[in-house]
Amino acid sequence: MNIVIDAFGGDNSPGEIIAGTVNAVNAEKGFTAVLVGKQDVIEEELKKYDYDKERIEILNASEVITCEEEPTVAIRKKPDSSLCVAFAKLRSDDQAKAFVSAGSTGAVLVGATLKLGRINGVNRPALCPILPTMDDGEVVFLDCGANADCKSINLYQFAIMGSVFAKAMGKENPRVALLSNGTEDAKGNALVHETLPLLYANKDINFLGNTEARDILSGKFDVIVTDGFSGNVALKSLECAVVSIMSTLKGTLTSSFKNKLGALLLKKDLYKMKNKLDYNKRGGALFLGANKIVIKAHGSSKAVTIESTILQAYRYAQAEITEKIREEISKTLANTEQV
Amino acid sequence: MNIVIDAFGGDNSPGEIIAGTVNAVNAEKGFTAVLVGKQDVIEEELKKYDYDKERIEILNASEVITCEEEPTVAIRKKPDSSLCVAFAKLRSDDQAKAFVSAGSTGAVLVGATLKLGRINGVNRPALCPILPTMDDGEVVFLDCGANADCKSINLYQFAIMGSVFAKAMGKENPRVALLSNGTEDAKGNALVHETLPLLYANKDINFLGNTEARDILSGKFDVIVTDGFSGNVALKSLECAVVSIMSTLKGTLTSSFKNKLGALLLKKDLYKMKNKLDYNKRGGALFLGANKIVIKAHGSSKAVTIESTILQAYRYAQAEITEKIREEISKTLANTEQV
Repeated sequence: MNIVIDAFGGDNSPGEIIAGTVNAVNAEKGFTAVLVGKQDVIEEELKKYDYDKERIEILNASEVITCEEEPTVAIRKKPDSSLCVAFAKLRSDDQAKAFVSAGSTGAVLVGATLKLGRINGVNRPALCPILPTMDDGEVVFLDCGANADCKSINLYQFAIMGSVFAKAMGKENPRVALLSNGTEDAKGNALVHETLPLLYANKDINFLGNTEARDILSGKFDVIVTDGFSGNVALKSLECAVVSIMSTLKGTLTSSFKNKLGALLLKKDLYKMKNKLDYNKRGGALFLGANKIVIKAHGSSKAVTIESTILQAYRYAQAEITEKIREEISKTLANTEQV
Repeated sequence: MNIVIDAFGGDNSPGEIIAGTVNAVNAEKGFTAVLVGKQDVIEEELKKYDYDKERIEILNASEVITCEEEPTVAIRKKPDSSLCVAFAKLRSDDQAKAFVSAGSTGAVLVGATLKLGRINGVNRPALCPILPTMDDGEVVFLDCGANADCKSINLYQFAIMGSVFAKAMGKENPRVALLSNGTEDAKGNALVHETLPLLYANKDINFLGNTEARDILSGKFDVIVTDGFSGNVALKSLECAVVSIMSTLKGTLTSSFKNKLGALLLKKDLYKMKNKLDYNKRGGALFLGANKIVIKAHGSSKAVTIESTILQAYRYAQAEITEKIREEISKTLANTEQV
């Protein structure tokens, strides 16, 4: 199996991306890493490391897409960018099962949609981070920003994809909820009201109704579905609160000698807590519904995050996420056509 | 000036509501409190306290609306509820400038709209909490749940109302932003795209464009505008993160003897931090655009929160918030008619 990696995406590329790739290859067998980007730079960088030379390939791409560029324009105007070359590889190589990039989210999403394509029947792929819950579990949260305007059919498909994914990752009968402004069926905006009956009607999904944002991290649900605008607002609000509390906490911990002493005693565990809450460190967000596994790592990812994201991609490919979603969506399409 | 208080709304009513009212009256001169609810119960409860008898009036209301009732039905079927009697008082008494309730949010909003009425020209009032920012300032955040589906004219009016409010509370040239899924003008859903040009065109508003949810508490903006669905999602996501972190922190602080010792040293400051982040303790959410000042305190409010909410209502009434919004909205209407 090949895992394709965008060596020229992200704030710390290519150095940290290449370091993370070497670490991933050294940590786990079973896949070959394909680093895409300027060949001479990658070759030079790889000289620093010890690894099985058979397991890292280089695919040359002379151009780089930055976060400042308008995604659609960039994808069109830079056919020899690391992103475009990577997607061409994924499209043409059956052995290439997954892709990891820390580059421009917009460009990855546009590139995946235009160059790699969607699973047949999926109207809109969704950006889907896996968030840590309070009971040490995880919740699949989608869409977090790929589609600012959604229709009920999109949310319906997000629920199917999220549920299939959670199941493939070992959750029996994953609990699915629809994000709303209240838990009662009567709550919600027009989109929620349209989506609710579709989800209740699908007996293959363990749909539990509406949830409030208050319960995103509570562990009550395995999959939470929303439109890309609200999902982005929720995700960034969570980030906002974490940053705000951590900053206040830091102020508190260093405000007096007594507090500094207290902080010193707690240091190790506070770091542990910070890492637990920082979902960026836990890997990337899936672009669920694309024709292969596409994972977007945070732009500021260092080697350790790139490594864990590559291993995450490998696990997803082993679990045959894409194949299982394809199967389930085609089943739904067949049912709809019968009706 | 009269401030009307729903003595029979909230989890801790009437005891804590009445205690909070007495405290508010004892803390500040300049207003009379009108407690609405079962007269005999209120009279009995008031016997416990020392206060200026001239400054607390009782208005009898035999019925109570609970949080379990469907708001529209409850408001229609219980004309002698504390909520309906309170709104009738606000409508008929020129001296009654403000209203405070810890009861059902839905019933307070429906009652305010149907029984009290909107400021002339305001299409939809908005629920508007005042959130603490990281730089020890405040941000006016609306709509947080009154209108799940909004049009651009609603968001436009929210921006005007929020800006007038912030100005009345002492902010010179309040910085206004529109909540979106990115800061660039091109980002956003259809509603954001429609609203953006309206806001840029209004030269009375210091409009700075789109903001991400990441910046809600950063202190970069004094007013943040969004639809009631996204606002609710943002607010409850912030709550979700705060609850989640506090619970993890509590676990960390008590996980070992060393940590307990550290926690002991930090105790006082950690409490201070918790209070700072808990916006519920800081008073209630305004229902901006109603014909009088309407503030919804949290359902679990105790006396201390009720006291601060009543004093908040008094400050808003002194600052003539409602009158100033009326003036600004009528100016906008006149401008629109000229066009």
